[in-house]
Amino acid sequence: MAANILKAGFPLAVWNRTAAKSAEAAHLGASVAATPSEAARDADVVLLCLPAAEEVRDVLTREDGIFASARRGTIVVDCSTIDPASSRDVAARCAARGLDFLEAPLSGGTIGAKNGTLTLMIGGDAAVLERARPVLEAVGKNLFHVGGPGAGQTVKLCNQMIFAAQMVAVAEAFALLDDAGIDPALATRIFSTSTADCTVVRGRIPVPGVQPEAPPSNGWEPGFATKWMAKDLKLAEELARDTNRPVVQTAVNHQLMRLAMLAGYAEKDLSALGLVLREQRR
Amino acid sequence: MAANILKAGFPLAVWNRTAAKSAEAAHLGASVAATPSEAARDADVVLLCLPAAEEVRDVLTREDGIFASARRGTIVVDCSTIDPASSRDVAARCAARGLDFLEAPLSGGTIGAKNGTLTLMIGGDAAVLERARPVLEAVGKNLFHVGGPGAGQTVKLCNQMIFAAQMVAVAEAFALLDDAGIDPALATRIFSTSTADCTVVRGRIPVPGVQPEAPPSNGWEPGFATKWMAKDLKLAEELARDTNRPVVQTAVNHQLMRLAMLAGYAEKDLSALGLVLREQRR
Amino acid sequence: MAANILKAGFPLAVWNRTAAKSAEAAHLGASVAATPSEAARDADVVLLCLPAAEEVRDVLTREDGIFASARRGTIVVDCSTIDPASSRDVAARCAARGLDFLEAPLSGGTIGAKNGTLTLMIGGDAAVLERARPVLEAVGKNLFHVGGPGAGQTVKLCNQMIFAAQMVAVAEAFALLDDAGIDPALATRIFSTSTADCTVVRGRIPVPGVQPEAPPSNGWEPGFATKWMAKDLKLAEELARDTNRPVVQTAVNHQLMRLAMLAGYAEKDLSALGLVLREQRR
Amino acid sequence: MAANILKAGFPLAVWNRTAAKSAEAAHLGASVAATPSEAARDADVVLLCLPAAEEVRDVLTREDGIFASARRGTIVVDCSTIDPASSRDVAARCAARGLDFLEAPLSGGTIGAKNGTLTLMIGGDAAVLERARPVLEAVGKNLFHVGGPGAGQTVKLCNQMIFAAQMVAVAEAFALLDDAGIDPALATRIFSTSTADCTVVRGRIPVPGVQPEAPPSNGWEPGFATKWMAKDLKLAEELARDTNRPVVQTAVNHQLMRLAMLAGYAEKDLSALGLVLREQRR
Repeated sequence: MAANILKAGFPLAVWNRTAAKSAEAAHLGASVAATPSEAARDADVVLLCLPAAEEVRDVLTREDGIFASARRGTIVVDCSTIDPASSRDVAARCAARGLDFLEAPLSGGTIGAKNGTLTLMIGGDAAVLERARPVLEAVGKNLFHVGGPGAGQTVKLCNQMIFAAQMVAVAEAFALLDDAGIDPALATRIFSTSTADCTVVRGRIPVPGVQPEAPPSNGWEPGFATKWMAKDLKLAEELARDTNRPVVQTAVNHQLMRLAMLAGYAEKDLSALGLVLREQRR
Repeated sequence: MAANILKAGFPLAVWNRTAAKSAEAAHLGASVAATPSEAARDADVVLLCLPAAEEVRDVLTREDGIFASARRGTIVVDCSTIDPASSRDVAARCAARGLDFLEAPLSGGTIGAKNGTLTLMIGGDAAVLERARPVLEAVGKNLFHVGGPGAGQTVKLCNQMIFAAQMVAVAEAFALLDDAGIDPALATRIFSTSTADCTVVRGRIPVPGVQPEAPPSNGWEPGFATKWMAKDLKLAEELARDTNRPVVQTAVNHQLMRLAMLAGYAEKDLSALGLVLREQRR
Repeated sequence: MAANILKAGFPLAVWNRTAAKSAEAAHLGASVAATPSEAARDADVVLLCLPAAEEVRDVLTREDGIFASARRGTIVVDCSTIDPASSRDVAARCAARGLDFLEAPLSGGTIGAKNGTLTLMIGGDAAVLERARPVLEAVGKNLFHVGGPGAGQTVKLCNQMIFAAQMVAVAEAFALLDDAGIDPALATRIFSTSTADCTVVRGRIPVPGVQPEAPPSNGWEPGFATKWMAKDLKLAEELARDTNRPVVQTAVNHQLMRLAMLAGYAEKDLSALGLVLREQRR
Repeated sequence: MAANILKAGFPLAVWNRTAAKSAEAAHLGASVAATPSEAARDADVVLLCLPAAEEVRDVLTREDGIFASARRGTIVVDCSTIDPASSRDVAARCAARGLDFLEAPLSGGTIGAKNGTLTLMIGGDAAVLERARPVLEAVGKNLFHVGGPGAGQTVKLCNQMIFAAQMVAVAEAFALLDDAGIDPALATRIFSTSTADCTVVRGRIPVPGVQPEAPPSNGWEPGFATKWMAKDLKLAEELARDTNRPVVQTAVNHQLMRLAMLAGYAEKDLSALGLVLREQRR
């Protein structure tokens, strides 16, 4: 993402909790900030990509955080996936400091991030989005304004429900195909032309070697870590609780992500579930 | 399918358990047979499309069935979705009568059937497939030879597992989107660019009006009936039992299809599940 | 069961597919028959305990089967757990041969069988039951007449749904207790006084050593084999299909039994699931 | 509970968020406090029964809360069911104020509370428990010291997992029995002698009229509200997340409680699930 922002000609200051991770961006021309506060100073747009709501609140409100330096009218764009209620809370905190806020959770994974082809599910004020658009278009080619704060997060969590469902079903199906001795590469070609077609069929077949560029062919890395999908499904279940909406399949998918985590694959791409289901046989 | 076979220039005799259903084919130039036996007489290729293994065996072995008239070397192509073991049994029965056999379960739905763009997952002898290919290419544009009898059915059942998973997840997701007041048409556009993208997102969004050509916008018809998906998932579970392979998500999806059937949607497209999940609120 | 019938003073002829298994009964005074037909000759009551409907039909109808020798008015009591429809079919076949029929599936396990404290869920004619009662009371102390053929099997399958649910929940709970380092024996004592109390708490705690007489303390044997519970849950799901009744939890429990079978515990008591769930950690 | 404490001869001051609820205790001899602080003043033992961790923290730390008046050495006994981590946090807060702390979540329902036969799952210091024992024995006849703070809550959440599993399985089973026209009272008698036996069979059969004293025969009230069980299962899932432990059945049971809540039974006894499952047919 930093590379694409720089390539588009924007000056960029980066801060990362793990300082080493800033090095690559520095190499490409970004300046490296020692604190979030320093990174946000004089910025027109501040982009956050963090694991959970707790870290988002922390990086804004800590002593050396963004609130300590950002000037009125700076736009805080939170690209993290967090629960809608927390995102609304963050929006309110920003407003109280005179900052504008957008949530813009992403879909597209590390490949989309690299190619600048991410989809952004944006919640917040439409006029603010227009001001931030030039920067955001450097990040992703599909910008969708969904509604106010929380709406983008809601759409993102629903996206994760569908993506996880594909992954679990494909993992179950390829375990059966394996039992039957059917060539997984052939099955993959078939499914790409049939009603089974989906993102996971196109790039997450959980059998090493079938798709050379996909995580299963590269040690189940990089990709989208199982633990992050477990977190997102947890958030989706909590969202469903607000309206007492049963989400039985989503709950089961969440538990199967836990099964993969228990088996040692928390940090690996969620396609590692396929490995777990096939490994169960002794 | 009959229309496409006729359009490709093949002479065609049709038989249907419900005589009225033969009328449309007759109108297009097919001759109408009074019995399966009559339809199969002098045929080079006999295509079967039936609900379950029981009907396949019946139409072959009944007194006025296909075995009563088909000459040696006729190719029986079973396009039904049945369990792999039954398909191997049917293959053996055909072989015992000197008939060649292919299983060729289809994917693509009524739209694919109409447009001749179906995917065929073919199990049987490769040389027999080459002889049947001209007819089969009139039916579907994607012909895949997977292996011997049973292999095509295995791939088809796995296809159904993945397709059903998409449908259930999309239904759960759009219930949450509905609770949150988010425009389903907008969410559909977003998901078609994100990791949620799949066959169901592209043509089975379970909200009337979002996709004018899709079953949910047309009284949940035509499409693929919920009861047939329930049947296919049952077969997938039975296949998994052969190797004691747990398929937890598939089992849950099956039960949710039952929920839709119980609610009165057995004959409706499987997307009616979305209606059921939203209707649960009182 | 044989021991208790002999103890009650009834003459007994036994036949077992595995001849060696007849030896113990012979030692206690039973005569050993070479075929089902021989065992049923001159019998007033014929008791069947077989794994599935297929074996029940076979032992009745095979050339050297029960139908070959049993005289009119002999009562066939099928203690197997099979699906209600098959049991009704068996009843009809018996009636056609002039034999009376009762289904009497059992609950109580190997311990109940040994102590003669089994519960019998009886379907069939009430007058026939009265004639068979003296023998059946030697087998089980709780005789319940539920209805016609099939009704006893229906109740038995429902019993298995509840029993399996207890086992799965207890296995999940004791995995969490293990993670938390809580003494399983203490937890067992607590649960026997609380709303968690159930048959599994009283005799199937899936941790070796907690209950010295229970299968988990004796190599997960004897008891009720995981594969038989998987079979019974499959039958319960099929029963539910007849009325399109969703049984989501039952379907999940079935899949978890498959998980235990896949892990190598098909022949072990169903409490082995607890071992499987704890073993998943690496 | 108040009645039993008074009956045992202890002076008692009560405070309830809903003042009217204090009236019955006042009628039995309790003094009514205007604030938590007033209720705790001069108390040797303070008992809390609250819906969730948030309320527990609030009633302790609010301006007119327990910390404002309780003297050093007062024992705070939290009978609420909350997550173990929150309970440890509450214990630490009490310790920082010089107060002793026990967690003592209860099992036994409104009937057990009325009869003083509750089971208490106690976490905290053993010596503190001995000091509180006389009061606690007036509340429940089964006092179990499980370990330090959090251990009692862990056992309670596991208890709820098993109790909920029974309820869901019994609801599914009695829907099938209903479909088959089998007398639910007879089935209940059978299950009380078979492996299906459990707390729910003995007092929560989800069919009105079967057990006259049970909630289903009394408008699904009183009992243990579906929403509280949903909350407890949520906490159990969160506990399982700490160790990445999959709890598939528990997750499904949770979702089925949501189904009952969605159907309007949030405040009714959890046995209302049986009504929901039977009502689904149209």
